[in-house]
Amino acid sequence: MSNKPSLNTVLSPRVLDLYDVSNSIVVIIDVFRATSTIATALYNGAAKVIPVDSVAKCIELGKITEGITAGERDGKVVEGLQHGNSPAEYPREFIEGQTLVLTTTNGTRLLHMALERGASEVITGSFPNLSAVCDHLVKENKNVILGCSAWKDKFNLEDTLFAGAVIHRIQEHFTIHCDSSLMAENMYNLHKDDMYQFIRKTTHWHRLAAFGLEKDLEYCVTKDVANVLPVYRNGALIAAEI
Amino acid sequence: MSNKPSLNTVLSPRVLDLYDVSNSIVVIIDVFRATSTIATALYNGAAKVIPVDSVAKCIELGKITEGITAGERDGKVVEGLQHGNSPAEYPREFIEGQTLVLTTTNGTRLLHMALERGASEVITGSFPNLSAVCDHLVKENKNVILGCSAWKDKFNLEDTLFAGAVIHRIQEHFTIHCDSSLMAENMYNLHKDDMYQFIRKTTHWHRLAAFGLEKDLEYCVTKDVANVLPVYRNGALIAAEI
Repeated sequence: MSNKPSLNTVLSPRVLDLYDVSNSIVVIIDVFRATSTIATALYNGAAKVIPVDSVAKCIELGKITEGITAGERDGKVVEGLQHGNSPAEYPREFIEGQTLVLTTTNGTRLLHMALERGASEVITGSFPNLSAVCDHLVKENKNVILGCSAWKDKFNLEDTLFAGAVIHRIQEHFTIHCDSSLMAENMYNLHKDDMYQFIRKTTHWHRLAAFGLEKDLEYCVTKDVANVLPVYRNGALIAAEI
Repeated sequence: MSNKPSLNTVLSPRVLDLYDVSNSIVVIIDVFRATSTIATALYNGAAKVIPVDSVAKCIELGKITEGITAGERDGKVVEGLQHGNSPAEYPREFIEGQTLVLTTTNGTRLLHMALERGASEVITGSFPNLSAVCDHLVKENKNVILGCSAWKDKFNLEDTLFAGAVIHRIQEHFTIHCDSSLMAENMYNLHKDDMYQFIRKTTHWHRLAAFGLEKDLEYCVTKDVANVLPVYRNGALIAAEI
């Protein structure tokens, strides 16, 4: 048997309990758009990003931290919050030094589930910070769970493609006995040179493109444009030194 | 909007409740090996196949129906049962006119879940009866759920490949807004000319090939060698007229 650490891909929060999360690094993946926005805000100098699962909590923590509150439902800023989920809303001149309190549903829930199940570390991944994630996982040499946030627990392609991109890059360093990982890598490899076109076929594209967010979605599958490593510590995601 | 019926793919029993099963035809898929064996037994003249979820129930129903009891765990016939899960065990000279009581875990559970959730019809699908399944779905012109039995609720590739084979064949007749279906069709299309080699990479292959079942697994991905339509009626799967 190989002494390499294991790597598994979890296609939906609904099946996280089938995997041994304890002592693993869990990568939370929510490509459209939470983890892409988190990477972008931290890359542009945000002090921290606090992910919360409800609008009420977002407003409450926004007051306590004097932070910027942000969140969307169906592509529109939620009433009572200040900003949306678009990475384009967080340039350096706006976000540097600030705390961003971001309400997301799928990704935040998976993050808390991973912590409850004993993950040794939780980081977030998206195409804008692909290399930072890959480099970190190879360097740490620990078991890895690639956690797709999915859409209301339903499988989605964009999160799976990112898992596949990570596997494509680092698979030689891990022991992988996981059909989900094999599928994810196959799907990424099949579409890696045609990503902008392929994402137009996903269900999420059809949900969000109606709100004119095509540029956003294309940004969210562009590699290494916000190459930072968001690590969850003391209730917030911060940019780790890489 | 199109008036075509919808088609969705369910990657694990764990997420069946996220889909509207009522008034849909549900195709139970358990390629290695339950639904391949069911197709083969019925094709070879079995009167009916009763799928049960426990060994105790298998023995009990075997007595009541004077049927042949069958079931494996980890590639070996279970103590107290007469036969195994291999399609090769059910040639016409053995199974014709008989009742087969088959204990399987993943597939049987999904079948009962689909019935409880109001499926209008439950059929079983596998590569040996691919054409019969496709022809039936096109003819019926109803909403379809392709239900992958998975492995202890974990995603598996072989069931997904069969879902992809069905979609590849009949997609023009359905409205498909489903990332799982798009992925399944992509995976089937990628590997359709290399199936015998590709299945050697699946986790299930590694589980079963240790028991010398390579020929079995290759049979289970061979199209139309037992082209019958198993339909669930009154507690048993029978061969419908096609």
